[in-house]
Amino acid sequence: MIVKVKEPLPDEWPLLRRGQTLFTYFHLAADEELTKALLETGITAIASETVRGRKGDLPCLAPMSEIAGRMSIQSGAKFLERPQGGRGVLLGGVPGVPPARVVILGGGVVGKNAAQIAAGFRADVVVLDVDADRLRYLEDVMPANVNTLFSDRHTIRQQLRLADLLIGAVLIEGARAPRLVLREDLSLMNPGAVIVDVAIDQGGCAETARPTTHSNPTYCVDGVVHYCVANMPGAVGRTSSYALCNAAAPYVRRLADRGVPAACSDDEGLAHAVSMVDGRLTSRTVAETFAMPFEPFRA
Amino acid sequence: MIVKVKEPLPDEWPLLRRGQTLFTYFHLAADEELTKALLETGITAIASETVRGRKGDLPCLAPMSEIAGRMSIQSGAKFLERPQGGRGVLLGGVPGVPPARVVILGGGVVGKNAAQIAAGFRADVVVLDVDADRLRYLEDVMPANVNTLFSDRHTIRQQLRLADLLIGAVLIEGARAPRLVLREDLSLMNPGAVIVDVAIDQGGCAETARPTTHSNPTYCVDGVVHYCVANMPGAVGRTSSYALCNAAAPYVRRLADRGVPAACSDDEGLAHAVSMVDGRLTSRTVAETFAMPFEPFRA
Amino acid sequence: MIVKVKEPLPDEWPLLRRGQTLFTYFHLAADEELTKALLETGITAIASETVRGRKGDLPCLAPMSEIAGRMSIQSGAKFLERPQGGRGVLLGGVPGVPPARVVILGGGVVGKNAAQIAAGFRADVVVLDVDADRLRYLEDVMPANVNTLFSDRHTIRQQLRLADLLIGAVLIEGARAPRLVLREDLSLMNPGAVIVDVAIDQGGCAETARPTTHSNPTYCVDGVVHYCVANMPGAVGRTSSYALCNAAAPYVRRLADRGVPAACSDDEGLAHAVSMVDGRLTSRTVAETFAMPFEPFRA
Amino acid sequence: MIVKVKEPLPDEWPLLRRGQTLFTYFHLAADEELTKALLETGITAIASETVRGRKGDLPCLAPMSEIAGRMSIQSGAKFLERPQGGRGVLLGGVPGVPPARVVILGGGVVGKNAAQIAAGFRADVVVLDVDADRLRYLEDVMPANVNTLFSDRHTIRQQLRLADLLIGAVLIEGARAPRLVLREDLSLMNPGAVIVDVAIDQGGCAETARPTTHSNPTYCVDGVVHYCVANMPGAVGRTSSYALCNAAAPYVRRLADRGVPAACSDDEGLAHAVSMVDGRLTSRTVAETFAMPFEPFRA
Amino acid sequence: MIVKVKEPLPDEWPLLRRGQTLFTYFHLAADEELTKALLETGITAIASETVRGRKGDLPCLAPMSEIAGRMSIQSGAKFLERPQGGRGVLLGGVPGVPPARVVILGGGVVGKNAAQIAAGFRADVVVLDVDADRLRYLEDVMPANVNTLFSDRHTIRQQLRLADLLIGAVLIEGARAPRLVLREDLSLMNPGAVIVDVAIDQGGCAETARPTTHSNPTYCVDGVVHYCVANMPGAVGRTSSYALCNAAAPYVRRLADRGVPAACSDDEGLAHAVSMVDGRLTSRTVAETFAMPFEPFRA
Amino acid sequence: MIVKVKEPLPDEWPLLRRGQTLFTYFHLAADEELTKALLETGITAIASETVRGRKGDLPCLAPMSEIAGRMSIQSGAKFLERPQGGRGVLLGGVPGVPPARVVILGGGVVGKNAAQIAAGFRADVVVLDVDADRLRYLEDVMPANVNTLFSDRHTIRQQLRLADLLIGAVLIEGARAPRLVLREDLSLMNPGAVIVDVAIDQGGCAETARPTTHSNPTYCVDGVVHYCVANMPGAVGRTSSYALCNAAAPYVRRLADRGVPAACSDDEGLAHAVSMVDGRLTSRTVAETFAMPFEPFRA
Repeated sequence: MIVKVKEPLPDEWPLLRRGQTLFTYFHLAADEELTKALLETGITAIASETVRGRKGDLPCLAPMSEIAGRMSIQSGAKFLERPQGGRGVLLGGVPGVPPARVVILGGGVVGKNAAQIAAGFRADVVVLDVDADRLRYLEDVMPANVNTLFSDRHTIRQQLRLADLLIGAVLIEGARAPRLVLREDLSLMNPGAVIVDVAIDQGGCAETARPTTHSNPTYCVDGVVHYCVANMPGAVGRTSSYALCNAAAPYVRRLADRGVPAACSDDEGLAHAVSMVDGRLTSRTVAETFAMPFEPFRA
Repeated sequence: MIVKVKEPLPDEWPLLRRGQTLFTYFHLAADEELTKALLETGITAIASETVRGRKGDLPCLAPMSEIAGRMSIQSGAKFLERPQGGRGVLLGGVPGVPPARVVILGGGVVGKNAAQIAAGFRADVVVLDVDADRLRYLEDVMPANVNTLFSDRHTIRQQLRLADLLIGAVLIEGARAPRLVLREDLSLMNPGAVIVDVAIDQGGCAETARPTTHSNPTYCVDGVVHYCVANMPGAVGRTSSYALCNAAAPYVRRLADRGVPAACSDDEGLAHAVSMVDGRLTSRTVAETFAMPFEPFRA
Repeated sequence: MIVKVKEPLPDEWPLLRRGQTLFTYFHLAADEELTKALLETGITAIASETVRGRKGDLPCLAPMSEIAGRMSIQSGAKFLERPQGGRGVLLGGVPGVPPARVVILGGGVVGKNAAQIAAGFRADVVVLDVDADRLRYLEDVMPANVNTLFSDRHTIRQQLRLADLLIGAVLIEGARAPRLVLREDLSLMNPGAVIVDVAIDQGGCAETARPTTHSNPTYCVDGVVHYCVANMPGAVGRTSSYALCNAAAPYVRRLADRGVPAACSDDEGLAHAVSMVDGRLTSRTVAETFAMPFEPFRA
Repeated sequence: MIVKVKEPLPDEWPLLRRGQTLFTYFHLAADEELTKALLETGITAIASETVRGRKGDLPCLAPMSEIAGRMSIQSGAKFLERPQGGRGVLLGGVPGVPPARVVILGGGVVGKNAAQIAAGFRADVVVLDVDADRLRYLEDVMPANVNTLFSDRHTIRQQLRLADLLIGAVLIEGARAPRLVLREDLSLMNPGAVIVDVAIDQGGCAETARPTTHSNPTYCVDGVVHYCVANMPGAVGRTSSYALCNAAAPYVRRLADRGVPAACSDDEGLAHAVSMVDGRLTSRTVAETFAMPFEPFRA
Repeated sequence: MIVKVKEPLPDEWPLLRRGQTLFTYFHLAADEELTKALLETGITAIASETVRGRKGDLPCLAPMSEIAGRMSIQSGAKFLERPQGGRGVLLGGVPGVPPARVVILGGGVVGKNAAQIAAGFRADVVVLDVDADRLRYLEDVMPANVNTLFSDRHTIRQQLRLADLLIGAVLIEGARAPRLVLREDLSLMNPGAVIVDVAIDQGGCAETARPTTHSNPTYCVDGVVHYCVANMPGAVGRTSSYALCNAAAPYVRRLADRGVPAACSDDEGLAHAVSMVDGRLTSRTVAETFAMPFEPFRA
Repeated sequence: MIVKVKEPLPDEWPLLRRGQTLFTYFHLAADEELTKALLETGITAIASETVRGRKGDLPCLAPMSEIAGRMSIQSGAKFLERPQGGRGVLLGGVPGVPPARVVILGGGVVGKNAAQIAAGFRADVVVLDVDADRLRYLEDVMPANVNTLFSDRHTIRQQLRLADLLIGAVLIEGARAPRLVLREDLSLMNPGAVIVDVAIDQGGCAETARPTTHSNPTYCVDGVVHYCVANMPGAVGRTSSYALCNAAAPYVRRLADRGVPAACSDDEGLAHAVSMVDGRLTSRTVAETFAMPFEPFRA
């Protein structure tokens, strides 16, 4: 069994062979060439990004969301500095000077972690979401400078007028992120305000979001700085690696101890992630995407 | 009366004339040409950076220290990212992964503000100082993830071994900052650790610190990233301007209402800042620096 | 020695006689008839409201300020209810609905206590003051939903636009409270907003404030509800009595143990409060107010 | 589709017609006349107060409970003032004087919100409930001045002796609130103590509770002030309206987008609330109450 | 029906008779003699320690875990004192001196309660667990001086090097506690460090743990103090009794009101705890342990 | 210069000689033999326990008070266990069971530290003091489960009735601790309640207090457990040593750098602690105690 973080590179393909089990992020549905090459090797492929937990969550993805949520604030704070193009405000203000307003679209894992750090910065934080129970929980556990708002288009636009920093944190599993901030909305924002769109890997919450890189992380549209780095957690590799290992470890251990079929037999969520077995495609989603034949995996 | 933030530029010198009072940061002792030019204009000059409060504090400088202290953490967090040269750790970690260690040398205004923000980031924070009463106060008002340590060379070196982020926050009024981190100490630190030396305007707490700019903020020595931007608060000009105005306003109002002599007559700390009166030098420090004659100001 | 809370009523005057010491709130300067009547009785009168502490504070008045500050929020919350004339908002909102904005003019004893309770209500609280050190201390010890602003006319007017509840908490010892909210400013406020003017006993912070009573506590000007009950702490007599006793007890004990002259001999602040001795006026302020002769008290 | 807050008034009945869907609070089981009149109009009626969430909760009622819980403390604080009939104590006391004791019967939505605000007032708060897991959660998220007690008759009576303010917050869905405080128990309480019975809409937790109005909110029994205003949230209409809209919006949107049958087909909790369809009664409860025929709604 | 805390003593056996129901901790599987004697009496026995709650928890055992978790820290603090054999450190340190490190193996009920108290002591606390969701919840509700780590052998050994106090808090229901600290690991620990093994009733998390008593609570192995008192909660009998009563009360009331069969008919978790009925064994576990015949209980 | 913690033992006396400076705790006034022996050696003796800070505090004693205050709670918690003789209550209770009441006499350094730890234990804490400003500060920085009460005999007796744990924390510098708890008062307390008298080194706050040792720390009077260990900090020697070094270091460094006279010339508080110079007694207190001649030290 081989455990990796990212999908195998073309150089590595020839090294793979039947009998091996590969546990890593594959994102097969986005790469037909990779899918075909791997099928030919005959390996058993378990796509960690699709493993489901007992509550329907994605345990191998959650830590990346936590990291991205927390990082979004440190990037936002930095790019609000004037030499970085921002409007020159300090998130927490100082005694006698008001703090900045941080508006977080989405109160899930990304949003909660962003709100915690923004609150720790002493900013004035609002989290928007449509799930009332989630808002209640956030009010139970967040510091007093985090307020929650029920999200609708009217409220979003109202908050854009006040926002110094906007965090796009609405991710819908297996779907494009909803377009909550339109191009026309940017004119409501203060010049030099910053958008950090954590949902960029799924297309972004802002219509004007397009993926950037750590080496060239921002661009400006209508006076608003956009930070849309894909794979944000890559920048804190040390933290991310530990977090990933923690998430993967229980699965890896069970697979190693018991073999793929036994390990999957009482864990539907793991079985769901088995994408190839001995060179046969077992993922319905991948099969449908590339119109390929498939055979459901039976643990 | 003219109120500014920074010293007058050469272009502005011809516009000044006897009878005017100028209240701004002058830093005359660092600029003989400026001093002479201003003496010739015949203005009355009040150097805001030298106004003293009733407790011996510097009320027009304190907000800049607060801002620099808070900014030091957002810069530190950013430059700990690997693409910025850092060791790739997230200050607060995530559940299951330990937070980074932030070591703050000095528990004064800069250090307290740095500690607050670092704690808000969920880092593991230690503040070192030699003033036991200050450490007690910090423990009374800081979050539980801030610990305090009595500072001595042994403890500093011990903490360098653990530090992911080191904040140099020891400033001694009117003197060079003490050299608390020697070049040889850098080898104790983790590769990719970051030093943010807020004391850089006074020479820095680290032997290896030299001033940098917002456009080129960091350099690396022995594997340790140094962020030593002079005038950090300039990057958050909106916040800094409000903070400065707040600090200056009470003085400006009193000077405007009552004139320089009356305003200074019952405020020694303000009188102390009167550096020139009608073209005569009244600051002993400046006079001694440039071996010029002076006449003490009598309110 | 007789210890009371309020000044003696006319019915009680005949009962007083030379040799007695009366320790109570007198407010002599506001009542010439009382002053003359008491001088005739020959008592020694110590006006507790004028006793000074070692830091220049007024230890027998401070607890009343604490109580009034805390009560101001419960009254404000109540009169924001629509049946009471208010705009029908709940201070803390609920999850998904934003909290109300509470603006507190003054960060002294009254303001700090008001801010604590308003923050506990989960409101969005700002405290305005001109004392930067006080604002710093408040940020150290207040919950995260309290922000501080440097107070000037511009900022006050800006905050009036946002305020649901305004607390007038600026008291200057021995002087009329400054008029910080003018009649014309009321038009900036939301209809149904509430002003609680704790400074009413000294004339009020709002131009439109005039004293009201617990039985008829509010009136409306330009759509803004005014709550200006004089002697607010009277409504929580149980709490107030204990608080007053606590404040008075050390003085009463010392006076009882050692007699007036000895007790005052090493406590200038207490000596200052001795207003009559054996039928002679010893308070300069009272003497000047009524153009009466006086004899300084020598402990 | 028509969306309202309260049931249609008789004047509005003639305006309703077949084909319309009305989404509002109906409380049909309490009003036979209304039920019959509406059946004749032929409308489809969805009783928002009976919509069930996925966890068996009542999402359109919960925000009203939150508001009532929070308001109960501000009313309690106010009526503890002596001019309002109370015993003259300030909930939080002041330094040196003990806080008041607030006893909250029930740790559900109402009780939790009451406890949060009472704790923010710095009172000494106890919450009684019989659900051990709920008590554990409350201890996890409440401030340190909230204690929890397992509720039984002995403990309730013990706490009545200590209580300055008692909040009745035990509501059992679809049933009369249990009578936890008997008339004879009032004699245990301090004279001037206050009972705020939030459960009054369901008959009240106190035997002596009877509904009052915002214009005449309290009465006194055996020396204990009773505040039993029905529909407390009506007094903060601005906050309540937003809260209700937030709760109703997701249902309204789904009904509008998809029509009643489709919207209900995958949401049993919504289907459950459909009380009439095209003039036929579909609510078993209402049918049984008035002995009328009914036809279950099939989405 | 008889309700007790502990199993009946031999002296009490003759007093029991058919028709009685006994609700208490029995631990029958550990005592064949007791089992046989009770069968002969003909009683109905409900073993409270095996009652299951709706979430699969053990509601009559949970309060004992809470108490043991909290007590573990006060015992650890005490035995870290040098006269008790410990290394002479104060858990929270003092300003200027670092706090002690408390390492808690397991983040369940015991671990959470231990962490809360250790954090309140101002120690530097880490909780290790393999359940990522549990670690997330702990970070939501614990003070900032509690960090969480994903538990594996490498991390445990690393933390042993740093630990002043180790709490063994890993309990697996109905199984031996896992051996997480081996004898060889003790050499990693500081001399005078303390292990409090709360899991001792299930064999202990440390290989070197063996049960001790309140009268002779500790022993030392390889320089490490072991505190392994079985039945820790017995030492705070007043608190434990109330806690037990709270947990048992709802069951006892239902049994008393409705009789055993009816009370069990809609509560599988209670039915599960019925170990004997009228002298017949109904517990499969006990039957298997002693190879005795049994008859499942049907409510 | 020799720096120690405790006074030199007789064995060490012959090793001392003129020219040496000894900086340690001496407590000379309690030991005439030691005083005479040291005078003969000709050393210069600086009694660290009498060094005064700029605010009149005792900087070398304060850390010991902090340690003793914190330890008092862990000892109290332990001896409340029934096997230790206590009444069997857990300080923090558990959810559903009320916490214990901790009554702290005195809100100085000892009391504040005791209150912090007791609050961290989740106990119900009250601090009694007569200094209103101190009580206000404590309310600003203590957790919400700490209340403050103005101390008088009536309130003390009232609290004794409620107390599970009483901490005697009233120390008056250079004087016997006041007797606040009389023998007759013990009958008010619950049987098995615990008194930890931190003031024992100065005679104790309780009439029934007499010094005990770490090996035999408690005794019982009238059913109340007394823990009166003299030199409590000795039990956490590791923490105490660091704390003492921190406190002494600045003085030691200054003495070493500049010599005794120069170091004392601008530090009256240090000069005050110079008890012998070159064999001449310079401490007035010691001289008066033993009727010996002395010569004031002039820096």
